[in-house]
Amino acid sequence: MKAVRLHAYHRTPTVDEVPEPKITGPLDVIVRVGGAGVCRTDLHIVEGQWEAKSGVALPYIQGHENAGWVHEVGSAVTNVAVGDAVILHPLATCGLCAACRRGDDVHCENSAFPGIDSDGGFAELIRTSARSVVKLAPGLRPEAVAALADAGLTAYHAAKKAAARLRPGDRAVVIGAGGLGHIGIQVLRALSPAELIVVDSSPDALVLAQTVGAHHSVPVDGRQVESVLDLTAGGRGAQVVLDFVGEKGSLADGVGMLRRAGDYHVIGYGGVLSVPTIDIISTEINFVGNLVGSYTDLVELMALAARGLVTLHTVTYPLEAAPQALDDLDRGLVRGRAILVP
Amino acid sequence: MKAVRLHAYHRTPTVDEVPEPKITGPLDVIVRVGGAGVCRTDLHIVEGQWEAKSGVALPYIQGHENAGWVHEVGSAVTNVAVGDAVILHPLATCGLCAACRRGDDVHCENSAFPGIDSDGGFAELIRTSARSVVKLAPGLRPEAVAALADAGLTAYHAAKKAAARLRPGDRAVVIGAGGLGHIGIQVLRALSPAELIVVDSSPDALVLAQTVGAHHSVPVDGRQVESVLDLTAGGRGAQVVLDFVGEKGSLADGVGMLRRAGDYHVIGYGGVLSVPTIDIISTEINFVGNLVGSYTDLVELMALAARGLVTLHTVTYPLEAAPQALDDLDRGLVRGRAILVP
Amino acid sequence: MKAVRLHAYHRTPTVDEVPEPKITGPLDVIVRVGGAGVCRTDLHIVEGQWEAKSGVALPYIQGHENAGWVHEVGSAVTNVAVGDAVILHPLATCGLCAACRRGDDVHCENSAFPGIDSDGGFAELIRTSARSVVKLAPGLRPEAVAALADAGLTAYHAAKKAAARLRPGDRAVVIGAGGLGHIGIQVLRALSPAELIVVDSSPDALVLAQTVGAHHSVPVDGRQVESVLDLTAGGRGAQVVLDFVGEKGSLADGVGMLRRAGDYHVIGYGGVLSVPTIDIISTEINFVGNLVGSYTDLVELMALAARGLVTLHTVTYPLEAAPQALDDLDRGLVRGRAILVP
Amino acid sequence: MKAVRLHAYHRTPTVDEVPEPKITGPLDVIVRVGGAGVCRTDLHIVEGQWEAKSGVALPYIQGHENAGWVHEVGSAVTNVAVGDAVILHPLATCGLCAACRRGDDVHCENSAFPGIDSDGGFAELIRTSARSVVKLAPGLRPEAVAALADAGLTAYHAAKKAAARLRPGDRAVVIGAGGLGHIGIQVLRALSPAELIVVDSSPDALVLAQTVGAHHSVPVDGRQVESVLDLTAGGRGAQVVLDFVGEKGSLADGVGMLRRAGDYHVIGYGGVLSVPTIDIISTEINFVGNLVGSYTDLVELMALAARGLVTLHTVTYPLEAAPQALDDLDRGLVRGRAILVP
Repeated sequence: MKAVRLHAYHRTPTVDEVPEPKITGPLDVIVRVGGAGVCRTDLHIVEGQWEAKSGVALPYIQGHENAGWVHEVGSAVTNVAVGDAVILHPLATCGLCAACRRGDDVHCENSAFPGIDSDGGFAELIRTSARSVVKLAPGLRPEAVAALADAGLTAYHAAKKAAARLRPGDRAVVIGAGGLGHIGIQVLRALSPAELIVVDSSPDALVLAQTVGAHHSVPVDGRQVESVLDLTAGGRGAQVVLDFVGEKGSLADGVGMLRRAGDYHVIGYGGVLSVPTIDIISTEINFVGNLVGSYTDLVELMALAARGLVTLHTVTYPLEAAPQALDDLDRGLVRGRAILVP
Repeated sequence: MKAVRLHAYHRTPTVDEVPEPKITGPLDVIVRVGGAGVCRTDLHIVEGQWEAKSGVALPYIQGHENAGWVHEVGSAVTNVAVGDAVILHPLATCGLCAACRRGDDVHCENSAFPGIDSDGGFAELIRTSARSVVKLAPGLRPEAVAALADAGLTAYHAAKKAAARLRPGDRAVVIGAGGLGHIGIQVLRALSPAELIVVDSSPDALVLAQTVGAHHSVPVDGRQVESVLDLTAGGRGAQVVLDFVGEKGSLADGVGMLRRAGDYHVIGYGGVLSVPTIDIISTEINFVGNLVGSYTDLVELMALAARGLVTLHTVTYPLEAAPQALDDLDRGLVRGRAILVP
Repeated sequence: MKAVRLHAYHRTPTVDEVPEPKITGPLDVIVRVGGAGVCRTDLHIVEGQWEAKSGVALPYIQGHENAGWVHEVGSAVTNVAVGDAVILHPLATCGLCAACRRGDDVHCENSAFPGIDSDGGFAELIRTSARSVVKLAPGLRPEAVAALADAGLTAYHAAKKAAARLRPGDRAVVIGAGGLGHIGIQVLRALSPAELIVVDSSPDALVLAQTVGAHHSVPVDGRQVESVLDLTAGGRGAQVVLDFVGEKGSLADGVGMLRRAGDYHVIGYGGVLSVPTIDIISTEINFVGNLVGSYTDLVELMALAARGLVTLHTVTYPLEAAPQALDDLDRGLVRGRAILVP
Repeated sequence: MKAVRLHAYHRTPTVDEVPEPKITGPLDVIVRVGGAGVCRTDLHIVEGQWEAKSGVALPYIQGHENAGWVHEVGSAVTNVAVGDAVILHPLATCGLCAACRRGDDVHCENSAFPGIDSDGGFAELIRTSARSVVKLAPGLRPEAVAALADAGLTAYHAAKKAAARLRPGDRAVVIGAGGLGHIGIQVLRALSPAELIVVDSSPDALVLAQTVGAHHSVPVDGRQVESVLDLTAGGRGAQVVLDFVGEKGSLADGVGMLRRAGDYHVIGYGGVLSVPTIDIISTEINFVGNLVGSYTDLVELMALAARGLVTLHTVTYPLEAAPQALDDLDRGLVRGRAILVP
């Protein structure tokens, strides 16, 4: 089969002919890839930023946002059958550790991450586990939802946690209406009655935010904290801030937009959270970490997608054009999400 | 190996020589039984009360409260090793359905119940799954904890749900301080700051209740509702009632002991809950069903047992004496829990 | 001022000239009534059904669903000012008991119920407390929202509790799409991502249900349980049932529509909930009582109303036409909710 | 009456003869002081550190941890009567804002802080509000519990939030076993089944920690992070860290002791929380602010105290010896908590 493999760091991956994956374990599932998202992380992998972390042996197949159709199943697989359309949870988890048994499989003590530390989905076929496949409802096409597997799942997980605190009359601030943020906005609309205030430095992103459900949009113009406070009850700030940026000024801004006893969701990363403890206790605010989402979260996100409540803008490339897709992404030429279609 | 098998309903099971179970699947675990609880359900099985429900083919091996040592493991088992002391969760669950993925494995859509609908633990060896074995802490002996596998787990699950609502100053009523109830009392003491009021018709049971942690004991003397109300703040009733009886007068009594906005936990069964809807809404009370407990619940219960916070009174019988144990249980001669030790 | 007073049970209330209420306590608020809902309870009061319960001394002013404008305030009132448009929480609560201090003021140990056990809002002015007034957002007219004060609040409270359990892909059944039910549907749409299945015996009610947000409507035709199950995943039933009827067949039907581990919300009343305890424990279902809603619930409901997410169909009558309004209601001639406007 | 008043910053307060407080509002309560805790904050006030924040007009009466007996009540007070023994919640809250109505009165939008920004309890009598008095159970003496009013309440509030996440088998780390920390340990023992690991640089504090319920004690010897990890399951860290220090090395240490998906409770303050966002998201940890506690929290803490589950070490001084008590505290000569007894 054809597959896009990285042979050396700092060199563009190539389209190779490789052997097809085989069923080796009773819970194995081989999926014919229908769509594989191309993500900024894929560029970082090529640049060698993940070399030490993943320890993956080169060459290997990239691609960690995958969807397709079940091609073959192991002897103990009961939850999907050949031909089923599926999306793949990004992690392969053990199912036996304490975290997995609680349903908190993101914190599995023995997980792998296909496309990062083992062969992924930039290929015609990918081997995964019965524990990682979610059946798609009729009408959902793999290439349309593939990018929800990781980016969308992370946004869903954070927005769901945030929504649990939001009541009618509350405000939620979304900082960053890019790839993850614009999914987060759609999820918050579906799961909560809060008014959504979206902050972004890009006018285009703010327009997109309004299209997908933001009630208010605030540009980053130096007055963004005041502008947000003006949109909250009594100028007291928002009950929840979801920070999809996590670097540069977003953290200081976001804390300034938060109400007493509010929750600050850290999703984007890169910067350093730095807050005097007296400011944390005198306002009793919380900082909430967010990491991908569970298998159950992905099932729920697909239920929203099936009802059209979460949609993605995508641009498809044939698998052979993977180098082009990576190059376009690197040069900022991709509008929405690039999807490789084998 | 030796095993106690039921050959026909209404006839005493016999001790037979049978083939040892074999590993047939990658997640199979064979356990050398160290102790198997003998439960009233075992009598009901012999009496044919479970014939239609379980549909089990006779002869089969009874025993659904089991603990022992790992004897052999399938190829994919990573959570236990040969020689580990383990207790067995009563259900064999699939691990792939929506309920299992949430950690709510009691509601697995494809579960089996060894000892009820397939071969159980009244034997030298039992085959179970990696998903059903919980490692015991050093110091916990299988024969001492076996009866916590089902009876104890049910009591733990209910008491844990109840404890989540209990605050300092609250009262919890435990109706029935028998096999499950006296575990429930110990769990409530470990997990909540509530004052515990125990109601039972047996003076012996009330003495046991005090020994294991009850703050107040109330006999069933016709004045039990008033007696309980007198022990609550302003006579307003208890925030939580845990009903381990679930038949005869317990339901009407228990509702009378409950405070506005209180929770009534149904655990025992047999009777009919019958309450005018106006009484439910005018006091805004809740009725909470309880069924066994999850794998995670069993892990937690074993953590309490390891610290000596939950203990059981047991009487051991050799496996060959199973007919005697069943007969003693039927005639009310067992003090505490009967445990078969192969 | 003019007021509609009940002078004797079984006789139509009359429009009388009475003295205006005066400020007597520091937290008193006098409200110029803008709208007062006429409710079936008002008929039951005239029929004497509440005589023993309320113990109210006749003559007295009916009307327990009130909204208007602040007319005068006591010395310690800080939350509203003269001229503010307000809706009145149906209870007058003490603010000092344990329940009030927790924010659970519906379970106040010292509450009164104006319009039921003391003078209500069928009048030009009503005296209430600072603890019972919620300011209306600009654009909300008192006569348009008055009926949300009690009927709407009850529906909101139950729907909010139900929504806390509902995830994408879940189903919620609403039994009864009448006065409360059609508010409940709107609240569930605003607060949860669940698909809503509405069951009613009236074709008109089902049409209304669809208009306000039901995804599926099911007539009571003898096959209603099967019809609902067919609309749920795998025929396993709904995660939540909200029963706004609570009598006749609704309870048995509703339990049959419920999924394992599901929540049955009792809101309507009149019948008897009667369920074998074995059915409660073997499915681990819960029955959840619901009673009016807190002050905070009413604030949240008004936030939904302000955004147009909850609307009511109303028919206004001048205060003098109260006897006519009561008569029309009794004869089934009122479409939507009758509102008296002084 | 006699009262200890601050006349000028940087000068020792003096014992003055002042007029008795009078009832001026319907919810006023005048309490005869039975005990008033002397706290490090009282030294900071004298040093002028609170001058700008509190804006209090000098001279004024210090003392913000008070208990005593009701001496006189306003016309609308229904929850206490003359002669009742009471402890005083440190805040005087409005009861009408959104936060108060939710039971979250610490975030009251209009609160005052007697002893800090108005006359406090270093006096024979203090005026407070019906909303701030909690009745003491028989057997609790005001001078024995006074210091629970603020320091104890803060520790209770944090420990209660932490306990909600703790399950059997979990570990909780308490950093700092001083005034607040040793109350926190007692509350965690009463409310949770977790094993408690206490970290302190003082050998005496670690001995005290063991006395009041710590399961493990760890000195600050440069290896404290490793020592704590060694005491957790698989060396993975504690589910919860309660940091009563909040400065110097405690924050970096505490984060190192925390498990994936764990909660870090910030209680002590002084330092700066500084964590790279990638560390927050890759482990999905949370930072939880904590500020005093609600009225309901204080009621619950008193319920624990009434059962002897929370005790304080105190040293009493007559009111006239206030200057001596402040001086002893400043010089580190007070073992336990200094209490002024008028």
